[in-house]
Formats: sequence, C-alpha cells, structure tokens
Amino acid sequence: MKYAVSEKYRDIRLFTERLVEPLSAEDCMVQSMADVSPTRWHLAHTTWFFETFLLAEEPSYQRFDDEFHFLFNSYYNTLGEQFPREHRGLISRPGLQRIMSYRKHVDDHMLERLQQHDFAQRHAQLIEVGMQHEQQHQELILTDIKHVLSCNPTWPNYQFLPLDRAAQPRKESSPADWIAIDEGVYEVGFQGAGFAFDNESPRHRVFVEQCSIDRQLVTCGEYLEFINDRGYQRPEHWLSLGWSTLNREQWHAPLHWHNLDGQWMQFTLAGLIPLELEAPVAHVSFFEADAYARWRGKRLPTEFEWELAATRLELAGDEPFADYLLDHRLAIHPMRAPKSLCGSVWQWTASSYVGYPGYQPPAGAVGEYNGKFMCDQHVLRGGSVATHSSHIRTSYRNFFPAAARWQFSGIRLAQW
Amino acid sequence: MKYAVSEKYRDIRLFTERLVEPLSAEDCMVQSMADVSPTRWHLAHTTWFFETFLLAEEPSYQRFDDEFHFLFNSYYNTLGEQFPREHRGLISRPGLQRIMSYRKHVDDHMLERLQQHDFAQRHAQLIEVGMQHEQQHQELILTDIKHVLSCNPTWPNYQFLPLDRAAQPRKESSPADWIAIDEGVYEVGFQGAGFAFDNESPRHRVFVEQCSIDRQLVTCGEYLEFINDRGYQRPEHWLSLGWSTLNREQWHAPLHWHNLDGQWMQFTLAGLIPLELEAPVAHVSFFEADAYARWRGKRLPTEFEWELAATRLELAGDEPFADYLLDHRLAIHPMRAPKSLCGSVWQWTASSYVGYPGYQPPAGAVGEYNGKFMCDQHVLRGGSVATHSSHIRTSYRNFFPAAARWQFSGIRLAQW
Amino acid sequence: MKYAVSEKYRDIRLFTERLVEPLSAEDCMVQSMADVSPTRWHLAHTTWFFETFLLAEEPSYQRFDDEFHFLFNSYYNTLGEQFPREHRGLISRPGLQRIMSYRKHVDDHMLERLQQHDFAQRHAQLIEVGMQHEQQHQELILTDIKHVLSCNPTWPNYQFLPLDRAAQPRKESSPADWIAIDEGVYEVGFQGAGFAFDNESPRHRVFVEQCSIDRQLVTCGEYLEFINDRGYQRPEHWLSLGWSTLNREQWHAPLHWHNLDGQWMQFTLAGLIPLELEAPVAHVSFFEADAYARWRGKRLPTEFEWELAATRLELAGDEPFADYLLDHRLAIHPMRAPKSLCGSVWQWTASSYVGYPGYQPPAGAVGEYNGKFMCDQHVLRGGSVATHSSHIRTSYRNFFPAAARWQFSGIRLAQW
Amino acid sequence: MKYAVSEKYRDIRLFTERLVEPLSAEDCMVQSMADVSPTRWHLAHTTWFFETFLLAEEPSYQRFDDEFHFLFNSYYNTLGEQFPREHRGLISRPGLQRIMSYRKHVDDHMLERLQQHDFAQRHAQLIEVGMQHEQQHQELILTDIKHVLSCNPTWPNYQFLPLDRAAQPRKESSPADWIAIDEGVYEVGFQGAGFAFDNESPRHRVFVEQCSIDRQLVTCGEYLEFINDRGYQRPEHWLSLGWSTLNREQWHAPLHWHNLDGQWMQFTLAGLIPLELEAPVAHVSFFEADAYARWRGKRLPTEFEWELAATRLELAGDEPFADYLLDHRLAIHPMRAPKSLCGSVWQWTASSYVGYPGYQPPAGAVGEYNGKFMCDQHVLRGGSVATHSSHIRTSYRNFFPAAARWQFSGIRLAQW
Repeated sequence: MKYAVSEKYRDIRLFTERLVEPLSAEDCMVQSMADVSPTRWHLAHTTWFFETFLLAEEPSYQRFDDEFHFLFNSYYNTLGEQFPREHRGLISRPGLQRIMSYRKHVDDHMLERLQQHDFAQRHAQLIEVGMQHEQQHQELILTDIKHVLSCNPTWPNYQFLPLDRAAQPRKESSPADWIAIDEGVYEVGFQGAGFAFDNESPRHRVFVEQCSIDRQLVTCGEYLEFINDRGYQRPEHWLSLGWSTLNREQWHAPLHWHNLDGQWMQFTLAGLIPLELEAPVAHVSFFEADAYARWRGKRLPTEFEWELAATRLELAGDEPFADYLLDHRLAIHPMRAPKSLCGSVWQWTASSYVGYPGYQPPAGAVGEYNGKFMCDQHVLRGGSVATHSSHIRTSYRNFFPAAARWQFSGIRLAQW
Repeated sequence: MKYAVSEKYRDIRLFTERLVEPLSAEDCMVQSMADVSPTRWHLAHTTWFFETFLLAEEPSYQRFDDEFHFLFNSYYNTLGEQFPREHRGLISRPGLQRIMSYRKHVDDHMLERLQQHDFAQRHAQLIEVGMQHEQQHQELILTDIKHVLSCNPTWPNYQFLPLDRAAQPRKESSPADWIAIDEGVYEVGFQGAGFAFDNESPRHRVFVEQCSIDRQLVTCGEYLEFINDRGYQRPEHWLSLGWSTLNREQWHAPLHWHNLDGQWMQFTLAGLIPLELEAPVAHVSFFEADAYARWRGKRLPTEFEWELAATRLELAGDEPFADYLLDHRLAIHPMRAPKSLCGSVWQWTASSYVGYPGYQPPAGAVGEYNGKFMCDQHVLRGGSVATHSSHIRTSYRNFFPAAARWQFSGIRLAQW
Repeated sequence: MKYAVSEKYRDIRLFTERLVEPLSAEDCMVQSMADVSPTRWHLAHTTWFFETFLLAEEPSYQRFDDEFHFLFNSYYNTLGEQFPREHRGLISRPGLQRIMSYRKHVDDHMLERLQQHDFAQRHAQLIEVGMQHEQQHQELILTDIKHVLSCNPTWPNYQFLPLDRAAQPRKESSPADWIAIDEGVYEVGFQGAGFAFDNESPRHRVFVEQCSIDRQLVTCGEYLEFINDRGYQRPEHWLSLGWSTLNREQWHAPLHWHNLDGQWMQFTLAGLIPLELEAPVAHVSFFEADAYARWRGKRLPTEFEWELAATRLELAGDEPFADYLLDHRLAIHPMRAPKSLCGSVWQWTASSYVGYPGYQPPAGAVGEYNGKFMCDQHVLRGGSVATHSSHIRTSYRNFFPAAARWQFSGIRLAQW
Repeated sequence: MKYAVSEKYRDIRLFTERLVEPLSAEDCMVQSMADVSPTRWHLAHTTWFFETFLLAEEPSYQRFDDEFHFLFNSYYNTLGEQFPREHRGLISRPGLQRIMSYRKHVDDHMLERLQQHDFAQRHAQLIEVGMQHEQQHQELILTDIKHVLSCNPTWPNYQFLPLDRAAQPRKESSPADWIAIDEGVYEVGFQGAGFAFDNESPRHRVFVEQCSIDRQLVTCGEYLEFINDRGYQRPEHWLSLGWSTLNREQWHAPLHWHNLDGQWMQFTLAGLIPLELEAPVAHVSFFEADAYARWRGKRLPTEFEWELAATRLELAGDEPFADYLLDHRLAIHPMRAPKSLCGSVWQWTASSYVGYPGYQPPAGAVGEYNGKFMCDQHVLRGGSVATHSSHIRTSYRNFFPAAARWQFSGIRLAQW
C-alpha cells in the first residue's frame, strides 16, 4: 500500500504539471470570467489542499508561506476568510516559479510522509480525496485555459499540435442502437472497495420506469440540424429560464462555434478548425441539451437511468481520455465517441443535483466539499476528453448550473 | 353540470373582486419588484385568459379591446409578443374602472355561454383551468399587495382590520408528534375525478425510505432560536448559494421581520404588529428553510414524503384559508396552524421541480402553463392563508426559486 | 405687495392643478425611470416646500401629517433622511385625494399668512423661491408625464386635444440670419430688482471672442439630414462619452422619434403624430446637440454668448409657453419657433454648469438648492413649451447631465 | 536637429523600459479595473503609435505583426475596430518577450529613419506627439501598476527599495504664503517654440478676478483633520454627485489609505508604510478635493488662476519628478513638496475640461487625441512624482473624471 499510494501521488502531481507545460507564465495568469480560475491558482490550490488537510496537521511541518493559506483557499468557510474568487486573476505575486517551488516543497514533504505506513494508513481517505481533488482540477485546467485562449482574437493553439493530430470520430453505423431498461426497483450509487465521493452514497433503491438510452452521443451534425431548423429562434423548444438566458446572452450556437462568412468553425485547444459533423457536440448548456432533446421528440435520461445503462458496459481501455490523448500526442478535443457511456463529453442528465436518501456530509472542513452545492445544479455523468481515465466511475456525479457551457458537456438522449 | 359550473365561475370571479375591495386605484398600480404584478394586471390578465382561450374561439365574439391581447398576455410565447413583465407598473391606462368593465364584459359573455350545455361540455377542461388559474392569481394578489404595502414606510393596513382580528395560533401540546412512513414503493401524483394540473400527473411509483414528518409547522419562536444562535452568521448551516444570497441581500431574518429598538416586529396585511412566537414562521426562502432544518439536526421532507403523510389526514373544514378568514372578518395572516398538513403556510420541500415520469405538457398555448418552468425551482406543498380552500389538493405542486420570500412560505421538518 | 404676492401664489398653485386635470389617479402614480417623479409626488413635494420652509417656522402651525416630512423631502440632507428617490413610484398611500387635501391645507394657511404684511415681508425671498420652485416642478410634471405616457404602447393623449390643436411652426424665411457679437469684456449674470436664483449671481465680467449666434432653432427636418447622413453611425462626429452612450442605449434618433415602416413618427403629449419637419427638434441630449453642430461645421454657443445675444431681444408676448398654450387650448408641443431666443425648446450650451466667480450658496437648507449640483452637468438656456412665461429670464440657467433627453431640449448653433 | 530627435527618442523609449525593469511578466499582465491597462499593453501600444502613424506611412516598411494593429489600437475609431478596452487583461499572447521584440523592431526602424533629415523634418510634429504620448503612458505605467499591486493582499513593493529611500518632505515654514493675482484680462494657453498639445491652444484672453493661490500643497496631516472632523460623514461639504459616489463606493479616506487597528497606513510603490503627515495628500478624487476645500472655507483654483500663478515661478531643477527619483534611487512616492507649483502631485482645478475659444482638433486620426474627451472631465495642472520632468509645462492640461483616484492627484487651495 505504502508504495502504491506514493507512486499514485507522484503520477497525479506530475500529470498536472504535464498539462501546464505548453503554457507561459502569462497564460497561467488569466481569469477570463468568474467561473474560470487562473492556471497558476489551480497549481497552488491543489497543493494548498495537501498542505492544509494533511501536512499542517503534523506538528513538525513548517508552512511554505503563511500568506498562501489565505490566497489559495477556495471556499472552505470553516477555514477562515478566502481571497475573493472573482479577483484571482489580479494577483501576480507569488509568481509561477514560486508556485512551482511551493509544489515541490509540499511534494517532498508528502512523499516523505507517504513512506510512513502509519501516516498513509491514518489519512488514507484524505490522501485519496486530495488526489481525486487534484484530478478534478486537472480537468478544470484544460477547460479553463480553453476559455482563456478563446478570448484571444488570434485563436492560440494550446498544445501546438497540427490540426490532424486528433483522435478520429467513430459514429457507429447503426444509429437506432438503444439500450433498454426494464421497469423496477434498482440499487444505485457507489458500491465496492475503491474511492468514491460522499455524494455518490448511500447506495439506495430507486424505482425506474421502462425506458431506453441512446448508445450514441449526439453529434455536431445532428445538432446543426436543430440550429438550421431555427431551434434558437423558437421558444416552444426551450425551458422558460433557458429562453431568457439565450436571449440575454445572445446564444446562437454552442460555445466556441463561430459562423465565419457562412462556414461553421470551432475553437479548440488546437486553435480554430472547421466544424466536424461526426464528432460529439460539446460546450452546450443544460438548456441547450434539454431543448435539443425536446425538438428531437426525446428527452434527457435521469442520472439513475444513465447509471443503470452504464454499469452494463465495460470501458474499452483506449477511450479518448486526457491521459490517452497526451500519451499519443493527440489534441485534447472530443472527436471520437467512446465505446462505453463514459468519456468524450460529459452528458447532461434530467436530474437536479440533490443528496441521496440519508446523505450526510463528513464532519469538519472536508464536509464542505460537495453537500453545500446541492442547489440549482444539474447532474452530468460520464467523463470527457479532459478527464483522466483513472478518474472515471459509473457512479461519479459531476454537476454544473444549467447555463454553464465552458465544460466539455454534451448530449445523450433517452426515451420511454 | 351546466348550473354548477356557471355558479362556480361566478363565485370565483366575485372572490377576486372581494379581495380587491380594500384597495385604491393607486394601490392597484404598484409593481414593487419584477416578481410582483400590479393588482390591476392580475384583474385584467385572469380575464384575458378566459377571453383568449374560450371566448375568442367563438366566431360571434367581439374582443373588448384589441390592445388588451398584447398588454395582458403573461408569458405565452406561442400567442405572440408580450408586454415586458418588469414594466407592468408603468402602464396607467387602461385605468382600473375600464379593467373592471373588461371583467364585466367577459363575465357576461362567459356566463351566457356557460348556460349552453354544448359549450360547457366541449371546453370543460379549459374552463376549469381558467378558474384554477384565477385562484392562483387570487393568492398572488394577496402576496403581491403585501409586498407592495411593505415598501411604504407608513406600514399601511390592507384590510383595515384591528390587530386582534386574526385567527388565534394553536401550537399543539405534544411537540414530538411525528407522522411515520414505512419504506416501500408508493404511488404518488394525482388520481380521481376532479381537476388537477398537468404537472400532478402521471400518477407513478416511487421508492420511499422509512422516515417521519413533523405534524407541526415550525413557529416564529422556534425560528427565533435559530436567529439568536447566530444562524444568519454561520456559513456551516447554509447551502453555498444560500450563503452568498444572504450576504448579497443582507438577510438577517425572514422577510417582513423588523427589529425595532430590540423588539421584533412583523409587517402583516394588518400593518406592523409584534412578532407572535407561537404562529408558524412565514416568508422564508428555501435557503432559510433548509438552513434551519440543518441547524435543528433535521431535514426538509421530499415532496413525496409530504404527499404520503398528507393523504392520510383529512381537512378539518375550518382551516384558516383565505375564504374562511374573509368570511369571518379575520386578518389574512398565518396565526393559526392547521389541523391537516395543508394550510397556514406553504411548506418548502427538498424536491426540485421536475416532470413526473412520462410527463407531457398539453399541445398548444396551454402547454406553456407548467412544464417550461421545470428548472431551478423548488416544490412547495400545502397551501396558505392566502389560498382559497377549494384550491387545496394533496397532490398540488406549488413552485418557486430558492430565494423567493414574498409568498407565505414556511417550514415543516422531516427526519429519517 | 401683500395683495400681489398672495395673488401670485394662488395663480401659481392653481396652474399646477390645471396641468394635472387631464390625469387619472393612476397616471399620477407612475415613475417610469429614476429621473422621473410621479405627478403626485410633484404635487406633494411643492407643497412640502412651503410647509417646511415657511409654515413650520410659525409656532402656531400644525403639520398636516408628520410622515409627509420624510415622504416628500427631495434631497435636502440637512433636513434629515429622505425616502429613496428611485422608489417614489412604489408609494400608493397617501392617495391623490389626500395629497390634494394637503395642498388645500397648506394653501389655506399660506394665503392667510400672506395677508400679514409682516410675514410676507420677513419671508419675501423664501416665498419667491417657493413659487419659482413650484414653476420648475410644473415643467417637470409635463416632461415627466410625457415620459410616463411614452412607455404605454397605446400612445395615450395627455390633453385629449386633436392633433391639429397645436401652434403652427414658423421657420423664418432667411435662414442665414445670425446675431453678431463683438469681442470684448462683458458683464453677465442677473441684475435688476426681480427674483433670480443664487446660481445666476454674482454678476461678473467675462471676455468673449467675436462670434455669431443663429436666430433660428435647428428644425426636425435639418436634424433628419444628420440622421440620413448616417450621423448616428459615424464616431467622428461624437464626443467619446457620447459615442459610448449612443451604443449602450441604442440611440438612432431623438427620444420619442419612431420609424414605423419607414415613416418617421413622433410621440407627443397629443399622442403619436407624423414628424413635423419645420418644427424645432426636441428631446436631444447634449451629446446629440454637440454632434449635430460638429457635423454641420458649427458649434454650440457658450452660455455667455447666448445670454449676450438674448439680452438684445425682447419677448414677443405671444410666445408658445405653457400658459399661452393652455389658454388657447393648444397642445403642449414645440411646433412654433419663438421670435426671441427664449422658448419652444431649451437650448444646450457648450458651458459646463459651475458657479460664477465669488458664488456662495445661501446658508441653511435652501443652500442645497443649486450649488451642490455643479458637477458634470451642462447649462441650457431659453425655456420651452413646458415652461410658464413668467418663469423666463435671460439669465436663467437650467442644467442637466449630457445624456438627458426627456426634457424639451433642442439646438441653437453658433460660429466664430 | 537630426541628432537631437533620435537621441530624445532613444532616451524616452529607454526610460519606459527602465520603469518596467522591476516587474515580472505576470505583473505586466494584470488589468485591475477598466481604467487600468496592463503594463504590457502600454509597452505595445506606445510602439503601435510610432508604427501606425509614422512607419506604416513608409512604403518600404513591413509591419511586425498584422494582428497587433487590432490588438494595440486604443481608441482611434477612424483606424478601425479596437480590442475592447476592459478585456485587455485577458490576452496572454503575444507574451512580454515578443512585445519587447516588437519594441526593438520599431525602434530600429525609427532610429534609422530619424537619421534621414527629410523624414524627421516632414514628421516633426507627429514624432514629437509620439514621444509625448509615450511619456504620458510612462506615468500611466506607474499609476496603473500601483493600483494592480494594491489589489494584492501581500502589499508588494514595486521597486524593492527600503522605506527610507524616499525624498524627504519639506512643508515650508510659513503656511500663510499665498500668491496674489490681480483682476484683469490675461492671456492664457501655450505660447513659444516647443511642443504643446492641441488642447493647450489657441492662446486666448480670459478675465480673471482678484484672488490668491496657496504656495503649498495640502498635506496628509491637514487632510486627516478633515477626516477626523467627520468630513466623510457630513453631506454639507460635498457635491451631490460626490456624496452619492462616496456612499456607493464606501469611501472613508483617500485611495490607498488603510486604517489598521487605529493606525493610518498608506500603500505606496514601496509597499505599506505609515502615513506621513507632512507629505502632500495624493489619490483623492475631484469630489474629495472640492469637499476638503469647502470644509476649509477655501476653494479650488480655476485652471487659469493656476496657470497665472505658475508662470511666475521657475522650476527648481531638482524637483521630485520620476526621472530624478529613479536617478537617485528614491521611491516614486510624493513625500516632498516641490518649490514650484508643478510636481509632487497633480492638482485638481475648479475647471471643467473644454476646448479653448477657436479650438479645432487636427485632421485625421491624431485629431482623436484630445478633443473628443472634452465632456465631464476636470482639469488637473502641475505634474507628479510619476511624471518625467521633461514632460512638464505650465500650460499642460491633464484631465480625469471627478471620481478618479488612482492617479497621484492632490489639492492646492485658492481664495478670493
């Protein structure tokens, strides 16, 4: 165990730094909207997590810099005041180099302690949470920097990869391939030996009606039909809140789509490229996913329908997750639909994000991790090209507000 | 049937006008926030509903005024553009008198047609919807005018009733009186012969865990303990969104509570009165209901737990609903807790407002009634002192955003 | 003197009520934007002025209603807190009738005291300020109600006069008629025996360069040439702040102009009518006046150039001021250009509103009347169809922010 | 001439880079509010100015990067669209290094051409404008980075100088030392052989009343008396717009003043230091300068009174301007009051910023330099510790909106 966990810790921390390699100190500074954090903040905050919840508990440990405790706390109210989220982009000091030193300092101390069986044992749960937490921020590093670069009129290329260095799309031949689910009482939620967040438990029973789930993700080409049918101009397809959001924000297409002189282009982490009709649509809000489904005469699955369908399938092993893409020097861009329900893009479900029956957040500051966000957010399931494959679970609940579009969020349909 | 429906129509329309009797033409003008509509708008819009969906279908019918079609449409996009909601308070013409003439015109035509068996038969469903719709607006007339008058620093009295003309509170003696529910698959949703809105169907099965529901509503006195325990200063009790709302809106207590020189006062439809500790707390948001429950070590019931508990109990017949209070010349103010789960104040549930499995909104403009609001709203159950008793059903789903406080919304607790 | 002042007082108070005659209690409620006050507020506030500054000083006087002191104070900080300006439209009580009773109460007391030579003598200055103040609010009643009614999509007619009941325009034959001013040191500012506001003094010397002032106001037809020359699309004509305002507010023409299917219409106090090309343009901001002048190769006069030109001319006696128009049952609408520089529309000058050399506001609350607004406002000179003729002086300084358009504000050109 | 101008060009360009030396690439990224530009933007924009107005006119010249034309245009509408000002902080590419290459590229080309007598002659005026323009941005680099660093809770030190490395204050002994000006007609505005901006001309006559101007700047200690006399709580001292700004922005003291546990501290370019009572007050708005003067029973001078007083005095040669401070390794911080009226802090005048009689902006894009900002801004005269000494002229007109506080702006009093 001792060996395994320190290895895993090192790998995860290294993967974060690998993601940041193509970026300049200046790229790492930008906060392009309140939802986005500067890359440098992600680098420091994940480190702060280990320092605060694990190292600072040790009497012998000396904090790297006392001011970091205030600067890199995210939202843990019980740990004291935080630097205001929307101003994270205003802090140029400490510089990136010093933040990398901070990472090294904490890594050295963590790796040393992870050798101690007692430490690893005692804090097993928190160490795991810290690593899962870092993996969540790895995904945010990618989605946030995509938003940052999209604000630059010169359409920068994050990875400096040529356009063809992307996994090829594989829209399967039989479009009518639906996964059937019988009505009945099912158990859902996490079970097993590994790690899961508190919000995936307790495992519990739900009654599910007979229904079926599309094995395929909705593609850009299919979504384009909705646009061309004046989908963004017809209120009857939209939730009331979606319709007012669409009008206020002047939405005409998914985020990062641009109609240049009649041709549809798409901003990607490899720069601006023509829209790929066979690739899964991404960067849609819950409102758009819901409107598309209604227009198509279908609906979004509930998170439990999704989970039941997903647990029947196996991951293929070469799914286009972030680590696979980086290892193969492929662009982080959802061109290929996965064989399982997981991956390529997160999938909006019809479910609001609430606690499972009997849910209790853990005591202390870690209790602020999930439960307090259970309001006016919508569950997404699956995983995306920006997720690390080891971070994928069929019981995993991602969640965002209905208007969020800067994630790799797409659509899978269901029907009765 | 013919007789019954015209009678019911007349009664409902008269009850609306009875509610407006204490108000001046000027009172009826005010829109104190975007959520509130001027009383005159409620008077006209409910009339517009009957004219548009029933009379205008008849070839012989002449519209009272063509411009009203635009002015008094609320949100039916399929019926064309609407006058912007937030500007309803800017329209001084037509005046109140002309709006009352409009009501009379439409009532004359409706009552004449309701005599025709064929008409009543053919449109039975729409006529019923129109009446239910008017009853919903009766409640809004009361909650909206309460908000309007609360903006006036002279604390006007809506009904001109003395302070003691209110139903007396009856907090039952045994506080530990909980209604137990066994785990199992239950049927929920509307069933039976009468009327129900589309969102109460389809009746369907849900799996419910063992739990119990408090027979009593939370009182002002109990809620005051939360305030005095610094409930509004401690983030650990609150949802994240609730905590930011509380800070932005500077909430320190329920809406309409005022601490004047150390004494808690409450603005009511009978003016400003001392806080009544035994009366049910009202005008709390979902955020406050949820935080109070957490602080108390309890939780809010789901809407299905609530419905199961409520269907076991009978209405008492003299519950403090709006019609009872008006008939007895009592102030419209939640001083008395009801014997059933219904009434006194609406009760926030833990459930987000979503469609039941298989839910389909009706075709046409009436389809815009409920379904399109199924996002980021929270279900309330019961009914309040501002509701007409005939409008109460245990399957009835009221819904508002988590921050809404201007309704008579209160708290009932649940526990595992 | 005793006779004269009470007569004048009575006339002015009556004229206010004459202006309100065509309005319903509901019309008098509306505050269509923060700059606009409800008519009922004007009625009460002008009365409050006499009560507060004159009657309340008398030991024997009993206030009509203590709460009015708070409700109808406008901006006199030294008199205590005020009801927030932007919420004036939310107060439905006291009703219009009670406000009229307030007026009668104060008028009775004022008229009684004005019989007392001693009172009239002692307070001569304040009485005069009160009457001038009421005349300013008479003009605001008209401009504010025009804005209020313009928000109503049914285009109501304030006076119920037919469209042709307006004074005919008289664009003089010789367009090149410029009033020449020689360079030199001149005295400007108020002098003489009558009343003037503090901001018109001290009379002082200024150096003025040689220049000339157009005897004619800019007409709607001339302004239309600017629009048709893409004046609103070309930044080179505009001040930087004007250009950003124009874009933010989506200005395409003066306020109250509407292009309906290619025809230019104009909302007036007599409802919606076709644009009259020969009438003076009104409802332009300082930004539009300045841009028009620049486009025309001219400029706006300074307030001193304007004053020098105006003092050479006499008023004609039948100028189209508010009292003349009402007496002749003509629409209050600037169709006729005046023979003097005064009247028809206020004229934006190039001068910022600042105090004259040696200017000192009076001591006490009345000192808050003018001086504290001397920042980021622009001087207008002349008078408009909404002004009472007795309120006109060539030294009179009106002032509004550069973006204000709801006044009858127009353009007179100057050149070197 | 050939020699002189290329030398001057080189010196000015080098001074800019000297100012940026202490900053990291990350510091140079931040835009802490809309008024502030990132340092890197200043570096690029000043270069863009020379490229656009001088080099791009030469047929042989190759632009460094075509995209820079769009990215680094500031507000020249006639040169096409600009990148939105408030988003300048979102652009991380081109990076700082590439911007420095851009500077070198343009400098090489400029210096080569400045050797050509014909080029220097033909463009003499534009070359001079470009250099003056760069000097204006040098000052902005300092004031903007001060604002940027002030957002960082760790109070960074821009120059890394110890606290005592500042010029010592020299409040002169005789406080009643006023410069008298007699009434009369005076000539004001630029005259002579050197350079001046268009807004300093035409030289023209004004009539000035007898008055006197304080030889001393208002100090922090004097300003503290105003604060301690509850100056920020008493509306009678304030312009109406100032009072509402103060309340909205929660002003309690000048910008960068912090009351920490009862001790007044001040954020400076040398970090956080105790308030120096004898140093000139800085970072006050026009509103605060005006309120202070009124409270003191004095007033602000007009810009012409200031100019007349200043033209009588000579610069001392060792005034604390930016170049002197840098040469002597002193902190850029207004500790020493100058012997002349110029320097230490800019001084708000009572004058609105308008064109002088007969003022005409130059034709073409350079015409957008000054004239279009002549609205709702207030003239400041003098110069500050952030100004280069060679940039000082007694006719120089600086201008900012009344609420601006991030400049080194202070107070000099006048009286009749």
